[in-house]
Amino acid sequence: MPGTRTPAFDVVALDADDTLWHNEPIFTATQERFRALLTPYHDAAWIDERLYAAEKRNLQHFGYGVKGFVLSMIETAIELTEGRIAGSEVQRIIDMGREMLTARVELLDGVAETVEALAENHRLMLLTKGDLFDQEAKLARSGLGDHFSAIEIVSEKDARTYAGVIARHRINPSRFVMVGNSLKSDVLPVLEAGGAAVHIPYAITWIHEQVPDEALHGKEFARLANIRELPAWLAGVESPG
Amino acid sequence: MPGTRTPAFDVVALDADDTLWHNEPIFTATQERFRALLTPYHDAAWIDERLYAAEKRNLQHFGYGVKGFVLSMIETAIELTEGRIAGSEVQRIIDMGREMLTARVELLDGVAETVEALAENHRLMLLTKGDLFDQEAKLARSGLGDHFSAIEIVSEKDARTYAGVIARHRINPSRFVMVGNSLKSDVLPVLEAGGAAVHIPYAITWIHEQVPDEALHGKEFARLANIRELPAWLAGVESPG
Repeated sequence: MPGTRTPAFDVVALDADDTLWHNEPIFTATQERFRALLTPYHDAAWIDERLYAAEKRNLQHFGYGVKGFVLSMIETAIELTEGRIAGSEVQRIIDMGREMLTARVELLDGVAETVEALAENHRLMLLTKGDLFDQEAKLARSGLGDHFSAIEIVSEKDARTYAGVIARHRINPSRFVMVGNSLKSDVLPVLEAGGAAVHIPYAITWIHEQVPDEALHGKEFARLANIRELPAWLAGVESPG
Repeated sequence: MPGTRTPAFDVVALDADDTLWHNEPIFTATQERFRALLTPYHDAAWIDERLYAAEKRNLQHFGYGVKGFVLSMIETAIELTEGRIAGSEVQRIIDMGREMLTARVELLDGVAETVEALAENHRLMLLTKGDLFDQEAKLARSGLGDHFSAIEIVSEKDARTYAGVIARHRINPSRFVMVGNSLKSDVLPVLEAGGAAVHIPYAITWIHEQVPDEALHGKEFARLANIRELPAWLAGVESPG
């Protein structure tokens, strides 16, 4: 029948942080305040470098998320002040974390209407990494929860994780598409797991999520400038019935 | 056919902390070290009281788990020393947290063989609350992972959470049984969601998980002294075919 289309994908999975709502700016702004706290002791570049070293070192114990970030900031402050940091300053760092955890969830441009429209004729999955408690709270504050038929909060987004999610939901990998802002977490491991991927870059990328250009050689995925373009892209890859 | 039995439950869900492996003693031991750190400033009872107040206040922001516990210990130390806590002491508190997160997972008596035996003729689910990253790491270290057909790590165990898990797995609530050490988290909310519950008390219960006796009036659930008794209990409630 002309005009009838078979959906190309059974599940459209969406990343959350910096795909649906702004996240990295909250970390960047906090890091700026942290830097200001330590400026009497060191220059900004060195503070950033030591903080990132602490974050990387702590990822294996603390995982992703605000609480681990706060602990890394405290450790960096102790290191850079040679233990002279005041209790009140440590308290200020913890308070910064509490503010991050209660910050207003600001959706990216186009998200509210696009997610609502997509939900009408696609099975949507929210697939995000990070802290379970924090991500659930952000989803609740975002008002988007009802549009998702599945929520998957995972501790790491590698090919094994994607393969596990795809198998658990009994999806053919080729009929699974992941949409997100991180080449490292939302694109490369999905392709490795046999799925499709759509990259929607965000203005800022955390250094830990950056990938070298070579890693992208020969990889096939779509790149869109704004989530508003996603419905048309999905329609374009659908096969005429 | 005589001897043939229909399983009474489609899914047997097991709590993890203090049901499969020892957890509360790790918190208790850490709290003892924390108390020793602050003994020059205050008496033990007051330290415990202020720490629990911080934990309760922070639950809404940090959720359950080691990282939130560490942040609560640091806040309590700052409060009780009126900010005079040294950077090196804050670092020691963070190190205690890192040690908790890498502590050896010690299974409770009877768990290894019982879980293995149960997995042969039941669909087992691990259903635990806490920090996603930490719980996954503990499950990996426990060596029990392969026996579970589903892993559910949730941020809170209330009736709504249980109803959601039961619905997501398309189980009839009356054919779902939860087994765990906490009346508050593993028994009462499951009954409210229409499931069955088996209480296996643990030697120590965190004050936050304690429930008043009145809350148990009229509630029907089983109580076993050791997980070894679980297979026989399950066989007992199975209906002859």
